Amino acid sequence: MQDAHSSPIINEAIRALSRLPGIGQKSAQRIVFYLLRRDQDTAKILGNVLPKLVAEIHHCVQCRNFTSLTICELCEKRHTSTEVCVVESPMDILAIEQSSAFFGRYFVLHGCLSPIDGLGPKELGLDVLEQQVKDERINELIIATSGNIDGETTAHFIKTRLAQYPIAISRIAQGIPMGGELEYTDSATLARALQFRQTIAGHRS
Amino acid sequence: MQDAHSSPIINEAIRALSRLPGIGQKSAQRIVFYLLRRDQDTAKILGNVLPKLVAEIHHCVQCRNFTSLTICELCEKRHTSTEVCVVESPMDILAIEQSSAFFGRYFVLHGCLSPIDGLGPKELGLDVLEQQVKDERINELIIATSGNIDGETTAHFIKTRLAQYPIAISRIAQGIPMGGELEYTDSATLARALQFRQTIAGHRS
Repeated sequence: MQDAHSSPIINEAIRALSRLPGIGQKSAQRIVFYLLRRDQDTAKILGNVLPKLVAEIHHCVQCRNFTSLTICELCEKRHTSTEVCVVESPMDILAIEQSSAFFGRYFVLHGCLSPIDGLGPKELGLDVLEQQVKDERINELIIATSGNIDGETTAHFIKTRLAQYPIAISRIAQGIPMGGELEYTDSATLARALQFRQTIAGHRS
Repeated sequence: MQDAHSSPIINEAIRALSRLPGIGQKSAQRIVFYLLRRDQDTAKILGNVLPKLVAEIHHCVQCRNFTSLTICELCEKRHTSTEVCVVESPMDILAIEQSSAFFGRYFVLHGCLSPIDGLGPKELGLDVLEQQVKDERINELIIATSGNIDGETTAHFIKTRLAQYPIAISRIAQGIPMGGELEYTDSATLARALQFRQTIAGHRS
């Protein structure tokens, strides 16, 4: 299908769009024809905002979330917090904020340890995090990486590296999801849910 | 999720991207973070090509396919052809060209008759098509709209409108797809396949 259209501009637009995640050749075509037929405004808006996006947005020096400021609004607002939640991506911050269950600061790794992709401790900003643990008043580090192998490995690595400092390091709980039925829960999750069972009455011997 | 990020530029980019077909809020976020983290070049290319796309691309005056020229390359190349294939969209042209089973000209309706969406005969360019049938040497009009109700209705409308002219008007065949199993073919398709059965030996009485 590559360069199937007679117009070079259409082909160039399709090629560029199909480099985006989740957009294949067919979807890119559909988007191009949609823009041409129905929504020329959006084409102009994207033409303006996308270059501005990559030119003006960078990492917050404190939490490494994306921002156009030096220190992002969330860090500014919660600078007195002594709890830091370590997440893989900015989208995780949104998810946690929506849960309204955490009001501390964040630290964004922008990925997991993955030597094959060139993602080592430095790329995840672990030196920055360690410096913050040393210099700032942090009581607890909550490691909220994913429950998959990469997330677990990264959590373990961070724990090992920062265990020498006098702070609490915790990992978000794993278990069956709310509303989840045991019958449909995979055995690894079920094993964790049993291992980390919570006593709700009496005492466990 | 609207405007969940602290940076107005990120929110604006997400809003614009999620207006594209097939891209929701989550996918738009993923694209924005992808562009920021991994592919600033694509953001710049899209910023350049998308406004150029809607500024420079318009309908070919002959076949109504998208082009940056007055008459598109395909029309130019096949201007002696006396067969015109009527399709709903430019993507249909690609599909037919890939089949290598048609070497005539095309006419793009850019949709189907749909009064509710404001798509009448004029919006589909049927006046332009009728003028071509009158003025040009056209022997056959092959109506290749979709097999759904909208496509059928549009095909019927075109047939009725142009029946007065001395040309052949045909409709692409409907039947079971290549490799299709009868067991899994819907009954409407099967009914058509039986109705339009082809005699392959002897004579039907």
